Amino acid sequence: MEELDTTWLLIDTYTENCGNNKSTMDPALINFKVLYVLTQLCGLTMIVLVGTWIGQHYGGLGGSSNPKLEFNWHPLFMTIGFIYLYGNSILVYRGFRTTRKKTLKLTHAGIHMAAFILTVIALKTVFDSHNLADPPIPNMYSLHSWLGLSAVIIFGLQYVAGFTAFLVPGMRENYKIALMPLHIYFGLFGFVLAIASAVMGLTEKAIFSLGANYSTLPAAGVLANIIGVLYVIFGALVVYLATEPSYKRKPLPEDTALLASNGAE
Amino acid sequence: MEELDTTWLLIDTYTENCGNNKSTMDPALINFKVLYVLTQLCGLTMIVLVGTWIGQHYGGLGGSSNPKLEFNWHPLFMTIGFIYLYGNSILVYRGFRTTRKKTLKLTHAGIHMAAFILTVIALKTVFDSHNLADPPIPNMYSLHSWLGLSAVIIFGLQYVAGFTAFLVPGMRENYKIALMPLHIYFGLFGFVLAIASAVMGLTEKAIFSLGANYSTLPAAGVLANIIGVLYVIFGALVVYLATEPSYKRKPLPEDTALLASNGAE
Repeated sequence: MEELDTTWLLIDTYTENCGNNKSTMDPALINFKVLYVLTQLCGLTMIVLVGTWIGQHYGGLGGSSNPKLEFNWHPLFMTIGFIYLYGNSILVYRGFRTTRKKTLKLTHAGIHMAAFILTVIALKTVFDSHNLADPPIPNMYSLHSWLGLSAVIIFGLQYVAGFTAFLVPGMRENYKIALMPLHIYFGLFGFVLAIASAVMGLTEKAIFSLGANYSTLPAAGVLANIIGVLYVIFGALVVYLATEPSYKRKPLPEDTALLASNGAE
Repeated sequence: MEELDTTWLLIDTYTENCGNNKSTMDPALINFKVLYVLTQLCGLTMIVLVGTWIGQHYGGLGGSSNPKLEFNWHPLFMTIGFIYLYGNSILVYRGFRTTRKKTLKLTHAGIHMAAFILTVIALKTVFDSHNLADPPIPNMYSLHSWLGLSAVIIFGLQYVAGFTAFLVPGMRENYKIALMPLHIYFGLFGFVLAIASAVMGLTEKAIFSLGANYSTLPAAGVLANIIGVLYVIFGALVVYLATEPSYKRKPLPEDTALLASNGAE
């Protein structure tokens, strides 16, 4: 209990000295905040536009009785789960830098789990929309499907590896330190591959649905292109915010205090 | 002249102590070399397969009298210039770490120039293949064209900015230091965007040429998919080799010697 009090004291001191005092705030963090807000606006716009795109041009959402409409869950849930939530989960450490490390790790794992569930539903609906079509459409033949499924598999393996290494207690500190660069690299690689797959998916949908008419730039085609551009801007911002060294979250005094008191963190 | 002799002495000493002596080589550099060779094999295979793809399935190369065949220069020269050479130009500093900095900068600018020339020819042939077709095919309507041209523009701006900041003498050292992270970020961003555009291009070509037959996985479709997978592996390796901190090139004694003697580097 005494230890906890000390921790809170340390946090208070930290917050007063470095936290919300704008006049002494690191200029790099002001840039971070501006870009972070821009990233969120870009991400939310992208989701709204995907909703508009499938609602206005492809008949909205539907269940397995209508495979064409069931397909529309695929771009929607992939955009929300495999792009927006995936990106936000990556950013959680730097976006909420005054929250204690343990909470951030649980949040990171939690958002990733939500992203994974939406992604699996999005996969289920695309397989349904192929298998339940009359005649059925073959699965897994396109480059989009090859790279997209690879991204999902990388994401899944990353989740298991990250959970085992960084969340389950018992992993030695030096292993954690050695694994972290790989966790970051493959996390960002899966994210970028998800975006590359998404722009291929937009290309497929635009050509399959519009055919030669795509070249006359009808509303559905222009909207698909704009969504693709937003995916890329969102991805570029997330990768920048997650890798720029001056935006790195610094350990809180309490992170160290808890580490010392628990023997592991 | 005396200065030059000192420089060579420094290089000789460096080479003897840290250069080619395998028994004392940094283990990180052995990993680097293995992955570097793998990257080259992946890149060369990718070029050979694009050649095979357009040769075996799309009639090979041709001039402006045959717009369909003229198009085939587009994937070939984009693969050689905008992916393979672009990636190799990025890697030149770490791949040839015992070469003096000035030579590396000139090589970097030179390979980038070769990449740019091939890219411009590749753009010319795709515009020709649209404009000279009967009836003409509209330009710049697809997401592939939007993102691909954006990548070329980013590349061009980067070239001008990089040339002015790092190659033309006169830029202050502290500006160079401030600009370098942006140069690296936008360089890698343009490269990844080129690859994302390339996999979209493969998707377009596969669907336009094979139609519904793509789903039966004919040889041309499988080959397109394999080329796309190789693009991604090549890109992932280049980005990893260019960003992993332990692979960073350390300044040579002569880099500093020249810096000190010239007052600028």
